[in-house]
This record gives sequence, structure tokens and C-alpha cells, in this order.
Amino acid sequence: RYGYFGQASPEVVRLLFLNVSGCLTEGKIFLSVSGEEMVSINIRDTTGIRMLQKEDMEVMLLTSDVDPVAKLLADKLTTRTGCEVMQVGGEPLEDLKLVVEKKKLDWKDVAYMGCDNHDVPCLTLAGLSAVPKDSPTDAINAAKYTCHNLGGAGALREFAEHILLQKQKAKSQMKQHRINRKDF
Amino acid sequence: RYGYFGQASPEVVRLLFLNVSGCLTEGKIFLSVSGEEMVSINIRDTTGIRMLQKEDMEVMLLTSDVDPVAKLLADKLTTRTGCEVMQVGGEPLEDLKLVVEKKKLDWKDVAYMGCDNHDVPCLTLAGLSAVPKDSPTDAINAAKYTCHNLGGAGALREFAEHILLQKQKAKSQMKQHRINRKDF
Amino acid sequence: RYGYFGQASPEVVRLLFLNVSGCLTEGKIFLSVSGEEMVSINIRDTTGIRMLQKEDMEVMLLTSDVDPVAKLLADKLTTRTGCEVMQVGGEPLEDLKLVVEKKKLDWKDVAYMGCDNHDVPCLTLAGLSAVPKDSPTDAINAAKYTCHNLGGAGALREFAEHILLQKQKAKSQMKQHRINRKDF
Amino acid sequence: RYGYFGQASPEVVRLLFLNVSGCLTEGKIFLSVSGEEMVSINIRDTTGIRMLQKEDMEVMLLTSDVDPVAKLLADKLTTRTGCEVMQVGGEPLEDLKLVVEKKKLDWKDVAYMGCDNHDVPCLTLAGLSAVPKDSPTDAINAAKYTCHNLGGAGALREFAEHILLQKQKAKSQMKQHRINRKDF
Repeated sequence: RYGYFGQASPEVVRLLFLNVSGCLTEGKIFLSVSGEEMVSINIRDTTGIRMLQKEDMEVMLLTSDVDPVAKLLADKLTTRTGCEVMQVGGEPLEDLKLVVEKKKLDWKDVAYMGCDNHDVPCLTLAGLSAVPKDSPTDAINAAKYTCHNLGGAGALREFAEHILLQKQKAKSQMKQHRINRKDF
Repeated sequence: RYGYFGQASPEVVRLLFLNVSGCLTEGKIFLSVSGEEMVSINIRDTTGIRMLQKEDMEVMLLTSDVDPVAKLLADKLTTRTGCEVMQVGGEPLEDLKLVVEKKKLDWKDVAYMGCDNHDVPCLTLAGLSAVPKDSPTDAINAAKYTCHNLGGAGALREFAEHILLQKQKAKSQMKQHRINRKDF
Repeated sequence: RYGYFGQASPEVVRLLFLNVSGCLTEGKIFLSVSGEEMVSINIRDTTGIRMLQKEDMEVMLLTSDVDPVAKLLADKLTTRTGCEVMQVGGEPLEDLKLVVEKKKLDWKDVAYMGCDNHDVPCLTLAGLSAVPKDSPTDAINAAKYTCHNLGGAGALREFAEHILLQKQKAKSQMKQHRINRKDF
Repeated sequence: RYGYFGQASPEVVRLLFLNVSGCLTEGKIFLSVSGEEMVSINIRDTTGIRMLQKEDMEVMLLTSDVDPVAKLLADKLTTRTGCEVMQVGGEPLEDLKLVVEKKKLDWKDVAYMGCDNHDVPCLTLAGLSAVPKDSPTDAINAAKYTCHNLGGAGALREFAEHILLQKQKAKSQMKQHRINRKDF
């Protein structure tokens, strides 16, 4: 539709895949002697999710089968954020390809936030992608944007603002384009 | 009363509205597998509240309806700090206008500490206002003072000392003014 | 006894008063919805306490009546550190004067670690005194040593090493002094 | 076997001894009023353990008898990381010597990660050794590698990547050596 600009238009980003461990949480798991397990999320980041949802973006939370805590907290995270939680395997790309196809989206319309080596293929493929500060080097190199904030402490919020800014830019470019067409 | 100086006099600041999430707490919410939820506050900050109360300032804690944890902890926070907890909606200004009116105060006699975009109107309006370090840019731009400390880790204490210093300055200006009048 | 040097000799420091909140802990109190309260201590710091105890120093933990959590944890802290826990009022100096007298010590033989304004008189009086990094300015100005580490994250360990170094220096000065006397 | 190079070859590192407190955890112990005790580990670090295990390295977790929490959590740590947990005394070297002998390894084939003074003999002896950033000076001086990350926040992951890089270097040196022999 916006092919006229000759480049992927970020305005159409409609879906964000978001790793729970290390992106929504700080990656820490609290283990107690009595068997309790705990993670922490940040209100700044959940506000970021709501900002995206208001702009009609869907946010899907990803948990990994090697991270049992996040899996057990899936329901709580859904209640708190309104996001669907999806469990992915060691190679998230395999699982997410099916989702992207089913939703009839293109990978350039997808945003991805990850924080480790197994996220590299998705970080490379997605139209917009980010990692929290202090991620392993391979993940940083694959991501299109490196946050100044840490996971679970504002990184997601920062990426949400980055996504919204890109959408706004794309919209105003389109508008400018139409004005130009009218003028000449 | 002190209109002679031709500017809002901070000496009359008598009320501090204080966001719980992100200002009194660090904004982190700990979620456990068994359903427990936890936030952390800092003794340096609760000492700050006591410093203000000793100088006859009222401190009101604000929780938001999008942040259920702080709401559940309201009683505990009241016991620990001696502050009333008030629940506000998505636009805190609407709720707080009524409070300010009822207390027969002017917004220039009010201090406000917030940490996100929905706090911008209050941060702009209040006579003294502050945000913790690392707040979103919009909030930082609206606040009159940006703390060097993080929320839940000394930011409130820093703002409390700032408020007391402003009050002290205003008092000594007034005293100086009276001396000058006597001398001439 | 070591008056010959014309100055307080740190070698005789035999007692450390240590604030629990903000010095042994990071000052954070975790409050849960179900009513649980939690603080954190650091193994690096508890190792520091053991280092002092091995050199025959007594370490006394101080909790304040405005900080109910530390009070409730007193027994646990005693079990874990082997230190007696003493509750002090808003002016710790009043309570500690009696202890110092009873132990027939001089204030120059006492080390004190605090982190807030009410610690100022003790920080000033003690032979060796320290505050964690990021303490309020008044406390920093009163302390003889400002740690590079934060409370609950190595500040106490750092001060323990500082105390032991001072003791060692004093001992080697004394030895040097005896050698000199023999030589001439 | 690889003595030709005239130096210890890191390619043969097959065993990592890893201190739980301060290396796998951040060294903090959370104590609750009701008697609960908690530590935190990081998913980045547990991923690091899996990276080593994939390359056929064994990782043994060490807990100390002065740190009762880690001992109580031993089973949970084993389930989560697949590592055996071993309890050591105040001088870990005494206990580990027996393990190294029994496994018919040489200390140059062992990697060690510690964070305090009692780790110094092992840090000195091991073929590869590391301490987290902010460790006491004695431990830093004894270690062959000082991490840029803190314990419980990526230090172990960093050391794991360092170990794997050393193994890779050694392998390519060996390959190069064989090529050179063939050529001349």
C-alpha cells in the first residue's frame, strides 16, 4: 500500500512480540526457601504496553519452556497487561512464523523485543526490533535499536515510545507526500 | 498575603501530592507464583515524609486505578507514613482540583511529585513539582525540579529537602524585608 | 595508654555500632499485599562483621523505633550475625552513651556507622565513623569516612576493612616506636 | 598432551566450580518477618550455565556452611540448572582438591568463579578464574579475569562466554599448528 516510498514503512507495525524474561522482567528470579518464586515487572513498562494498545497495536508476551517461572505467572501477566501469553521453544522464530502468517502480517509489520542469542533470528527479521541495555553482544548486534534502559526497568517503555514515534513519522511523511502531490 | 514580592512565595507550600508507584516505590511490582504481590519503599524516603510533617505540611499519597497493588497496600502505607491515601483516575488533575479547592489552597501552595505522562498537568500547575531521575521526557520537561535519585531510592527525600529549603529561603527573605522596612 | 603519639590511637577501637536500616540493609522495605515485610542483607557485609569479630571487636546492631521491620527481624539478625541488637530512640546518642560508659570505653575507641541526620552526633563523636555512599549530605559531612559502596551492598564490608587497616597501622606504628626507643 | 605450546592450554577446561552466593546470586539475602528467606538468580546466568553444559563442561555449584540460605535452596538450584551442589568449608581448596583428584583432572583444567577472600587460593590455582565486578580487592587481584558485570546480574554469563572463547582459541591454535606442520 505504501510501497511508493520504496522502503518498508514502519507505520504499519501492528504487532509486538515481547520476551517476558529479561525484557518485561529484569531477568531475575527470586527463589525462596519455602518454594515461592517471584519476578518483578515495572509500572513504567506496563504503561508502555497500554500506550501501544491504545494505538491499536497487539502485544504478545513470549515465555520460554526453559523458564518455568514466567510460564506459571502467565495468567497474572495477562490480567495485568491485557496481553496474550504464548509459550515458545528454543527457536522462537519457528513458533512465531505461524502466528505472523495466520495474522496475515509481514515480518516488516512486526516489532520484536528480545534479550538473548536465541532471539537473534527474530531481531534480524522484524521491521522494528530492540534489546535492553546490557544484553549479550550477539543480541545487540542483531537488534535495530538498543535501549538505554535495562530490562524490567524502562527498556520496554523506551521501545514503545520509539515504535510510536516511528509510526508518527511515517504518518506525517505520508501526509507531506499527499500535500506535495496536491501542490504540483 | 506575600504578594509584595511580586511572585508566588514557596513559603506557603502546605500540601504535597505524592504518587505511590514510581515515586514512593521504585515502580517495580514483585509477582509471585503463589499470587503474592510486593512493592518496596525506602526508609530514607519515609524519613523525608516525617521531615515534611514536622514542618506542618500535609502529605497525600496518590494511587491510580490502573495500579491495583498500591491500592491493596494503602492501609499499610497509611500506618507506616501517617499519610492519607487517595485513589485518582487516569487524569489526576480532575480529582485533585476538588481537594485543593476544599482545602482552600491555591495550586501555587501545592507541591506535586509524579513520574509519568498523566502527571504532566499537575507537575505544570503545582507551585513546586518534581520527578525522579529516569522519568519519561515529557514528565521531566513539565516538572520544576528533576531529582538526582531514583524513585523508591531517595528521590522523595531529595524533593522533601528541596521543599524545606525553599520554605526557609522564603522565610529569610521575608525577615530581611521587614528589617529593610524598619531601617529606612 | 598510647597517649605518647599525642593523638587518638585507632588501634583501640573495640566496638562498632551499626545501624541496621540503610547500613546493614539497603534501606528498602518490601511490603506485600498479604502483610509480609522483607529486608535484604548482603553476604559481603555479614562476612565483614565476622572479620571484625575475629579481631575481637564487638559489633552491636541498632534499630530505631520508627523502623518496625528491623525490630521484628532482630532475632534473625542475631542468629545470622552473632551480634546483639539494641533498639534506640530518635536520638541514638542518648542510649549509646550509657552503653559506652558501662563498657568502660571512650568514644574514641568506638566505631559508628549510620546513614541519616539523627546519626550526626554519633558520627561526629566516634573515633572512626562512616556512612554509605548516597547518604544525606549532613550525614556525609559528619562522618570521618564515606564509603564507595551503597548500604546493604558492601558499604559495611568496606568500613570493616577500613577499621582493620587502621588497627594494623596503629600496631605497626607502636612497634616502630619501640624499635626506635631501643635503637637510641 | 598439548604441552608442545609450552603453556597450559585452556582448551582442556572441563569443570567449573561456581560459588552460589555472590556469583550465581547477587549476594543479597531477603529476610522476611514471617521467617521466609529468598535469593535471586538471573536467567542470563542460567543460560550461561547451559551454554557450558552444551560444550560438555561440568558446572558444580559451591555453597558455604556460613551461608545457610544457599544450602536450603540446593535442591531448587539443582532442578533449575542441572548442576550438582557441593557444600564446602571455610577453606574451599581443601574440599575441592579431592574432587579434582577424583575426576583425574589437573587444576589448570579447572575454571573457578568466586567473590571473596576465602576464594583466593582457588582463584590463584585454577587455569581460568574470575570474580564479579565490585569484589573485594584481594579476590580481584587473585583472579585471572574480572567481570564487567555484577554477581547475579550477568557476571557468570560473561565468564561462561570468556571460557568458551578461550576453548575456541585453543582449538584454532591447535588446528593452525597442524596446518603449519603439514606445510613445512
